[in-house]
Amino acid sequence: MSQSIAANPDRLLPADPGTRSIARSLLERVQDLPIISPHGHVDAAVIEHNTPFPDPAALLVSPDHYVTRLIHASGVPMDKLLSGGANASESREIWRTFVQAWPLFEGTASGYWLRTQFDSVFKLGADLGEMSADASYDAIAAKLVEPDFRPRQLFKDFNIEVLATTDDPLDSLASHKAIAEDPSFNGRVLPTFRPDAYLNIAHPAWGANVERLVDSAADGASGYTGYIKALENRRRYFVDHGAVSADHGVLTPATLKLDRSEAERIFELARAGKATAEDRNTFEAHMMYQMARMSVEDGLVMTIHPGSFRNHHQPTFAAYGADTGHDIPFATNYTEAIRPLLQDFGTAKDFHLVLFTLDETVFSRELAPLAGFYPSVYLGAPWWFLDAPDAMLRFRSAVTETTGFSRSSGFIDDTRAFCSIPARHDASRRIEASFLARLVAEHRVSEDRAHEIIVDVVDSSPRRVFKL
Amino acid sequence: MSQSIAANPDRLLPADPGTRSIARSLLERVQDLPIISPHGHVDAAVIEHNTPFPDPAALLVSPDHYVTRLIHASGVPMDKLLSGGANASESREIWRTFVQAWPLFEGTASGYWLRTQFDSVFKLGADLGEMSADASYDAIAAKLVEPDFRPRQLFKDFNIEVLATTDDPLDSLASHKAIAEDPSFNGRVLPTFRPDAYLNIAHPAWGANVERLVDSAADGASGYTGYIKALENRRRYFVDHGAVSADHGVLTPATLKLDRSEAERIFELARAGKATAEDRNTFEAHMMYQMARMSVEDGLVMTIHPGSFRNHHQPTFAAYGADTGHDIPFATNYTEAIRPLLQDFGTAKDFHLVLFTLDETVFSRELAPLAGFYPSVYLGAPWWFLDAPDAMLRFRSAVTETTGFSRSSGFIDDTRAFCSIPARHDASRRIEASFLARLVAEHRVSEDRAHEIIVDVVDSSPRRVFKL
Amino acid sequence: MSQSIAANPDRLLPADPGTRSIARSLLERVQDLPIISPHGHVDAAVIEHNTPFPDPAALLVSPDHYVTRLIHASGVPMDKLLSGGANASESREIWRTFVQAWPLFEGTASGYWLRTQFDSVFKLGADLGEMSADASYDAIAAKLVEPDFRPRQLFKDFNIEVLATTDDPLDSLASHKAIAEDPSFNGRVLPTFRPDAYLNIAHPAWGANVERLVDSAADGASGYTGYIKALENRRRYFVDHGAVSADHGVLTPATLKLDRSEAERIFELARAGKATAEDRNTFEAHMMYQMARMSVEDGLVMTIHPGSFRNHHQPTFAAYGADTGHDIPFATNYTEAIRPLLQDFGTAKDFHLVLFTLDETVFSRELAPLAGFYPSVYLGAPWWFLDAPDAMLRFRSAVTETTGFSRSSGFIDDTRAFCSIPARHDASRRIEASFLARLVAEHRVSEDRAHEIIVDVVDSSPRRVFKL
Repeated sequence: MSQSIAANPDRLLPADPGTRSIARSLLERVQDLPIISPHGHVDAAVIEHNTPFPDPAALLVSPDHYVTRLIHASGVPMDKLLSGGANASESREIWRTFVQAWPLFEGTASGYWLRTQFDSVFKLGADLGEMSADASYDAIAAKLVEPDFRPRQLFKDFNIEVLATTDDPLDSLASHKAIAEDPSFNGRVLPTFRPDAYLNIAHPAWGANVERLVDSAADGASGYTGYIKALENRRRYFVDHGAVSADHGVLTPATLKLDRSEAERIFELARAGKATAEDRNTFEAHMMYQMARMSVEDGLVMTIHPGSFRNHHQPTFAAYGADTGHDIPFATNYTEAIRPLLQDFGTAKDFHLVLFTLDETVFSRELAPLAGFYPSVYLGAPWWFLDAPDAMLRFRSAVTETTGFSRSSGFIDDTRAFCSIPARHDASRRIEASFLARLVAEHRVSEDRAHEIIVDVVDSSPRRVFKL
Repeated sequence: MSQSIAANPDRLLPADPGTRSIARSLLERVQDLPIISPHGHVDAAVIEHNTPFPDPAALLVSPDHYVTRLIHASGVPMDKLLSGGANASESREIWRTFVQAWPLFEGTASGYWLRTQFDSVFKLGADLGEMSADASYDAIAAKLVEPDFRPRQLFKDFNIEVLATTDDPLDSLASHKAIAEDPSFNGRVLPTFRPDAYLNIAHPAWGANVERLVDSAADGASGYTGYIKALENRRRYFVDHGAVSADHGVLTPATLKLDRSEAERIFELARAGKATAEDRNTFEAHMMYQMARMSVEDGLVMTIHPGSFRNHHQPTFAAYGADTGHDIPFATNYTEAIRPLLQDFGTAKDFHLVLFTLDETVFSRELAPLAGFYPSVYLGAPWWFLDAPDAMLRFRSAVTETTGFSRSSGFIDDTRAFCSIPARHDASRRIEASFLARLVAEHRVSEDRAHEIIVDVVDSSPRRVFKL
Repeated sequence: MSQSIAANPDRLLPADPGTRSIARSLLERVQDLPIISPHGHVDAAVIEHNTPFPDPAALLVSPDHYVTRLIHASGVPMDKLLSGGANASESREIWRTFVQAWPLFEGTASGYWLRTQFDSVFKLGADLGEMSADASYDAIAAKLVEPDFRPRQLFKDFNIEVLATTDDPLDSLASHKAIAEDPSFNGRVLPTFRPDAYLNIAHPAWGANVERLVDSAADGASGYTGYIKALENRRRYFVDHGAVSADHGVLTPATLKLDRSEAERIFELARAGKATAEDRNTFEAHMMYQMARMSVEDGLVMTIHPGSFRNHHQPTFAAYGADTGHDIPFATNYTEAIRPLLQDFGTAKDFHLVLFTLDETVFSRELAPLAGFYPSVYLGAPWWFLDAPDAMLRFRSAVTETTGFSRSSGFIDDTRAFCSIPARHDASRRIEASFLARLVAEHRVSEDRAHEIIVDVVDSSPRRVFKL
């Protein structure tokens, strides 16, 4: 019975029969379009080497902090969840814990993605709750060793056209190069320049990173001059290897144009380990301005992801590291913060700036008005906790009346969970169809136009915004 | 096909057939009620002189920053949009640009108003996208020269009973007087006292404005005393010419009761050009308090419109001036800010204070609780970016459970686009009908009561709140 | 006609027929479950002594600041509303005022609760607006003197299993003891430790309260040491008398671990009347940390209710005291504020921390992510102004996709209006059924699972979260 919901062709579509019927026809229009994934966290080496996926726990539980967090909240210690892949019996034990916790995921986005994967990727044939944990473990494990379950075949089966990864500025991009040069593989796997740990002076590795950066890429220049030069050079290297965007995970969206001497002063203070928290904020704001300047020059789309208090629970961070489920959003304000950058680059030719938020209040209040004026500004799709059916509908409702459909980024799966990619894009398409179907049912958009719009939103927007 | 949506009698009504049928009957109850427009930006001289409307671009594109902004965002430079009316060929060129950009407006409030005008005012007979740009330009231009398309006839055809304008405190109100004394015209065209440029000491014209104000209206008094006196006198002048409200566009809703000596000190600093940004904020807050005091004395309804960062993009402001599409909202907080004013005037007899916001979070959190206690406080209708179907439904959902239907201002079109007035009020009535229909369908309000409520909301509320 | 809506079995359920039919079946599953009320303001003495309820105005109007505020907003002075019970003619006059104001309550949560009471508790047989004020007054008054209308019989008729009160830390809890020891009464009436007036050094009674507290419960210790000791002792006393939770009404959710010497310093400053506003905030934050520590030790569930600016209108407070309808919410931020507490106690064994908010933006942005990671954190149900059908649906939509259904507190009626308790719980159950029905209709949750979830949400959650 439960299983049927994962396979139901009307899943996520609105209940009203008339609206649902419109939504069905809109969905049909885009259901088979290729997946464009311009921002995510899959490791390019996995595609390069066509690495087999590990066991079910190591694939689906341990690395997914959407999943581990909710099980942790129910009282299971982190160490019972994070060691998937350590050995077969530990993995099986984690899987049992997960299956026992499965009812917690009812109504969640993670639950939806997992259930869809179990049905359409792993063909479990029944809801997880209706099988024993060992039976589902074995069924999935059996699939994972099939030759057709290697990343490259799935890439093709999933109908992925473009997949962007997220990469360290000093990454050699060897995997990307190998993939691009491999005539046997057609998918585009693009690197993304992600320099947070080179820009945020409070990052533990900042000093060492900057050292390596300047040493290896500054063309002999040193100090702040070398730092800027090296960043420019590495961006160029990424462009040459197919990158289309540079991504920035920042505390706030603050931007600032510092005098060169002031920037230099803070840079040197930071290298000497003497920078204050305020210096950190000032320097990050300045570097966002610099990144925008470089984007105007080298064409990389600039994406900004602010508003998450990372590693909220210090003891968990100390024991298990980052990305363990306790990054907690907080209130974000773009209007004043982003202004210095937009003063100088907001109307710059071919500059694309995609603004994300974890604070939904910003959608109608700030982001839609900004994207409705500045040619450079695009609305980042609902992200992280907001990448879910109701939240995506709230996003469309919040922004469309101000900016229409032309100013958003297209869906961003933002995931390291490769096997969940089709489920995520499918959910997004269903929600776009649902939202548009309501507008059609309310005679706000004609059905013909809605058919054009959904293609634009699903397919043309990400190509246009990310210059693909 | 597309055209049919503008003419569809069920447009904007909810999709569920049962709810829609209730909404239809509620809408019918108010569809023919006269338009009461207690806050807007039409120029009274246009009504006085019955000035013919200019060409299509100069009427519908260039002056409408809702429209130009979104075309600008799509990459069209401002100078290709703002010169409508300069000459026939430029206007036609702007119109072509607009028609090409028309698909951008799908799903937006502006698109809805325009489409409705094209259908019901200009009788285009087809959607804009289905005609050539020249054909639609010519069709509208032909209408515009018809004698029935002059403002006074449209005022009557639109069934406008009251139209408030927005006026400079030193305006002679000659147009209003002429209209009021003209026995051949029945519509009420009322001035509104809008003193921003006389209260905000950072306004470029503040110094000169104050000079003129004190010289002409202070009964011989000078300095801060003359300033206050002159404001009181000019308000009285507005009251004598039919004004019912004083409107305030402020940065924040801060209010403050300064000692007279402190107010005087800042006033003199400002005249000497020595005031700081903090002085500006303090003085504006103090003047809001003073405006409330005057409203208690002279009976003008006080309306406050805070929360917009005006002229966000300095280069566009420098080149094209204000109201060019880059006023961007930011977070607003009323609870503490408005308290000093409410301490002293919140329960003052016959004082009406209408609070607007561009920050939707304030509706349920602050405005509904304030309006649910203070007899003076009314909820300003969703305004500017929020004056749109979904946003208006969110507003009703956010405030009704706390304050019911009796504490809101009634619809505010806030427009300078005369021909869009019926479309805007029609949209609002459809949304009121939709919201109430849902409450009826959910057995939360009886259908009989809903029929009374919708009349109260559409017709009695603005009369009551604006003392009409 | 109007009356029928109060009795309509489908009230509050969604309009779409398919979804409504699912909602009906879910509602049926929980409609007869007992009421668990883990947070409210009924006076235990009323249950102990089985005190007859006073007249209609003294029962339903004067003490209910949800009701008086909206009548006050319509222009009725407070003194015409607050003296219910003073004498028969005053009460009747207040009732007439209330009945005249009854249309103001259409669409409000209060209106729903009252209408439901009139129908199902007082059996008026018609809507209030269809009877004369005297007729409804007499009908209710006649019910109130019936022996079956005494609190204990209603407690039973209402199917209340647990009712928590809110109590002063120095309360003897004699009523609770008497009720618990009375073999003729089966209901559980539990005290709740509410120490605001002992923790907030700006509270007018703080000095005297602390004096009494230390004198009576510090085991001879004095100063800050005695203060902490006495709080621990009184909490223990509450635990021994059945308390399951300690409740905290605070300005903000700030928490802070002060050095003992610093805490002592502020404590002594406050006793000397020399503490600043900043000291107040610091000390309250510190005491929240201390309360958490004590909860970890003694097992009392900790509930936090921040974000209300109490007594906003000073003149009304001066004349009529607190809880007179002008507590106004403001923006709340949990992420940073609650962190010091969660660092040390967020994963403490058996610690339960229920976080409430009057700022809806916090639900999806902060509370759901916090409750989705920390085993201690539970989402407080929508409270006060948010305890209403649409607001409760917005809550579920905001949090479920991030945390599912397992992390919320269950419904909290938070009321002193005893006769409204069934109506409030009934409304909540109808909304839970409505939300789940939509998920079922959208094939996001199977109908079988939804039947389990609604029982968990309505019945198991409050038992689990409040350790009942």
